[in-house]
Amino acid sequence: MTEPISFLSDFGHADEFVGVVHGVIARIEPDIPVIDVVHEIPRGDIRAGALALLRAIQYLPNGVALAVVDPGVGTARRPIAVRTEWGHFVGPDNGLLAPAVAVVGGANLMVALEDPQFRIPAKGATFDGRDVFAPAAAVLASGQADISDLGPELAVDSVTPLMLPLVEPDPTVAVGEVFWVDHYGNVQTNITPGDLTAIGVAPGSDVAVRVGATEHVLSWVEAYGDVDDGAGLIHVDSYGQVAVAVRGGRADESYALAPGVAVTMFGIRRVPVDIQNPSAR
Amino acid sequence: MTEPISFLSDFGHADEFVGVVHGVIARIEPDIPVIDVVHEIPRGDIRAGALALLRAIQYLPNGVALAVVDPGVGTARRPIAVRTEWGHFVGPDNGLLAPAVAVVGGANLMVALEDPQFRIPAKGATFDGRDVFAPAAAVLASGQADISDLGPELAVDSVTPLMLPLVEPDPTVAVGEVFWVDHYGNVQTNITPGDLTAIGVAPGSDVAVRVGATEHVLSWVEAYGDVDDGAGLIHVDSYGQVAVAVRGGRADESYALAPGVAVTMFGIRRVPVDIQNPSAR
Amino acid sequence: MTEPISFLSDFGHADEFVGVVHGVIARIEPDIPVIDVVHEIPRGDIRAGALALLRAIQYLPNGVALAVVDPGVGTARRPIAVRTEWGHFVGPDNGLLAPAVAVVGGANLMVALEDPQFRIPAKGATFDGRDVFAPAAAVLASGQADISDLGPELAVDSVTPLMLPLVEPDPTVAVGEVFWVDHYGNVQTNITPGDLTAIGVAPGSDVAVRVGATEHVLSWVEAYGDVDDGAGLIHVDSYGQVAVAVRGGRADESYALAPGVAVTMFGIRRVPVDIQNPSAR
Repeated sequence: MTEPISFLSDFGHADEFVGVVHGVIARIEPDIPVIDVVHEIPRGDIRAGALALLRAIQYLPNGVALAVVDPGVGTARRPIAVRTEWGHFVGPDNGLLAPAVAVVGGANLMVALEDPQFRIPAKGATFDGRDVFAPAAAVLASGQADISDLGPELAVDSVTPLMLPLVEPDPTVAVGEVFWVDHYGNVQTNITPGDLTAIGVAPGSDVAVRVGATEHVLSWVEAYGDVDDGAGLIHVDSYGQVAVAVRGGRADESYALAPGVAVTMFGIRRVPVDIQNPSAR
Repeated sequence: MTEPISFLSDFGHADEFVGVVHGVIARIEPDIPVIDVVHEIPRGDIRAGALALLRAIQYLPNGVALAVVDPGVGTARRPIAVRTEWGHFVGPDNGLLAPAVAVVGGANLMVALEDPQFRIPAKGATFDGRDVFAPAAAVLASGQADISDLGPELAVDSVTPLMLPLVEPDPTVAVGEVFWVDHYGNVQTNITPGDLTAIGVAPGSDVAVRVGATEHVLSWVEAYGDVDDGAGLIHVDSYGQVAVAVRGGRADESYALAPGVAVTMFGIRRVPVDIQNPSAR
Repeated sequence: MTEPISFLSDFGHADEFVGVVHGVIARIEPDIPVIDVVHEIPRGDIRAGALALLRAIQYLPNGVALAVVDPGVGTARRPIAVRTEWGHFVGPDNGLLAPAVAVVGGANLMVALEDPQFRIPAKGATFDGRDVFAPAAAVLASGQADISDLGPELAVDSVTPLMLPLVEPDPTVAVGEVFWVDHYGNVQTNITPGDLTAIGVAPGSDVAVRVGATEHVLSWVEAYGDVDDGAGLIHVDSYGQVAVAVRGGRADESYALAPGVAVTMFGIRRVPVDIQNPSAR
């Protein structure tokens, strides 16, 4: 019974790297469906790759997740396969797989991809995506091998974690940062709607969004259509995170936001004005 | 009986959007083939997306066309499915589908995609491509649902049209505009060869091509090989439209052409010269 | 028995060209798997396309290789199909196919794609990828036609060759050039490890790499991890060629290298120093 492979990398589309990985898989078992999740992860950006895999995993068919963002290729970092309730994960042990593995319930078996029987011999340096990871993914997806055939077992708690920033607990402000800027300029933060309600900010209210020394006041709405064209907003995005957006525009450009930039959000206290003495407020 | 889905969007390749849509389809029915028609439609450019779908449709296998260029996501525009003789079309009701639907003979049934049974619940804002359009396309392609199951029927003549510019009727000039500049810099206009012959311009003759205040004289040839390397030309392109090209070069750069730019074409009258008195002409 | 098609082009991803070729194939036979090898070959760069196909071919499943980098479309260059031990090659006869065909053992039959029965009639100029090459690839992959049905046989030695530069024989230096700069900035040359050992340079030693008037001294190592982060190196890459790289950086930028740039490599002679008279060396 053949399972699909979902394939994510920083290989880009300028070279034949993605195609060659498809070729290696098809030479091992032509009937494996391969879904290209994304290949334009910024070069060597493990965090960006891990977050993309984390966002995507629940929408991908159970099977094998093959993920290659590997700035440490040619160093001692281990190539691994991980078995979970979702299916198998294959890639470098550099934190890339950890968040997605955790969200599907954690690893129940992990091995180092060392058995040369499941590697393609290279003429020089190993191209691990082609020579190590693709064959492992293909034999797992096709059932030609069990994960325990691929190499020595590793302790599941030895998987390299990825440290993702948490929103700092604070009674009045949510101190977070940008996780992701998408193709449209929408900006996902690590702040959740619960982080905002915990500091007394309710959906529908105005929210101060501080970026560096600048504060922007944006409405917390449900959908883009709730603000005027060209206006900024915050909303709970389709992954459940608080995101900054501009209807018909780019929030990254409007608010100088990029992955890793700190963002602080807090409620706007509408100070009651003393009608008798307005200048006293 | 599973039908293929042909998928067009402005999602780009930087994020996992395209991959997640493939994943949603595969989770519903793994055996549906999905053809990626194009995903680099300029952000929110409904006309560019509609024209690409229109050009492609006759070459795509009968089945489901899933098209998402949706600047109005999060507003009141309707998500729809349309049944035609070609197959089903799924996407936003913003004009994107209209030209392709028309060219395959028009809609014979249209529904609004409202039944929550065929939507994926999102944690926040709906990502319609993933949560509404992909599931609808998948159940139509796999036969798991009939179009009438997906939501309330709409009047087929209520589909939002796309206004495409017509060549203005004029006895001596063809007043058109640029529809499309392709990756190679070739420039397709909305002018047809019939528009040119109607004003007395014949294949093989020289044609004046006016862009702004500048006139270029180009030969109307059959193939690039009929002019010198680096020379401009007009020809009937592979979609039957009059196009401006430069052999081995980029016509968009040579002639300052871009989508929407006005282009006027007319014949070159070779005025008979009075040999006795050449300066009199 | 359906075979896979591996598809390489310079079509890019901005337009629907790649999708339409998939569509044409699926309309002829929906069950043909199609692998997208790469579509971002620089426009009309036959050498870059030929080298990508050459690198990829051994990793692609036996079947049909469909390759379209065709600056001469619309001229007299022939559209061809070639039969080899690996499978069939389909594309323009401009040198694009020649290196890959040679590496799999050469052509044993070649035809010109002239039979109109296996072409799609176009409304104007032929889009050969869609109208000539895709149908030919599809009928070969699906077994609907034999190569000899597609057009008149050509002498196999009449295939247009691609001239690839050889490393010039020289007793002390290897005079080569850059074949390929990949997405990561790694620089593959046409120099082989044998070319270096032939001039007395051994793995593990330092090598002078001359680019223009500048000489860089780089270590010949096995893997990136053998040098410090940010340091340059040469190594035998995963295709068996000598490549210049920078750990965690871009060798193309560090050393001003691009495809076609001349690179000369030679050993560093460590001149014994006369300890008594160091200035005499």
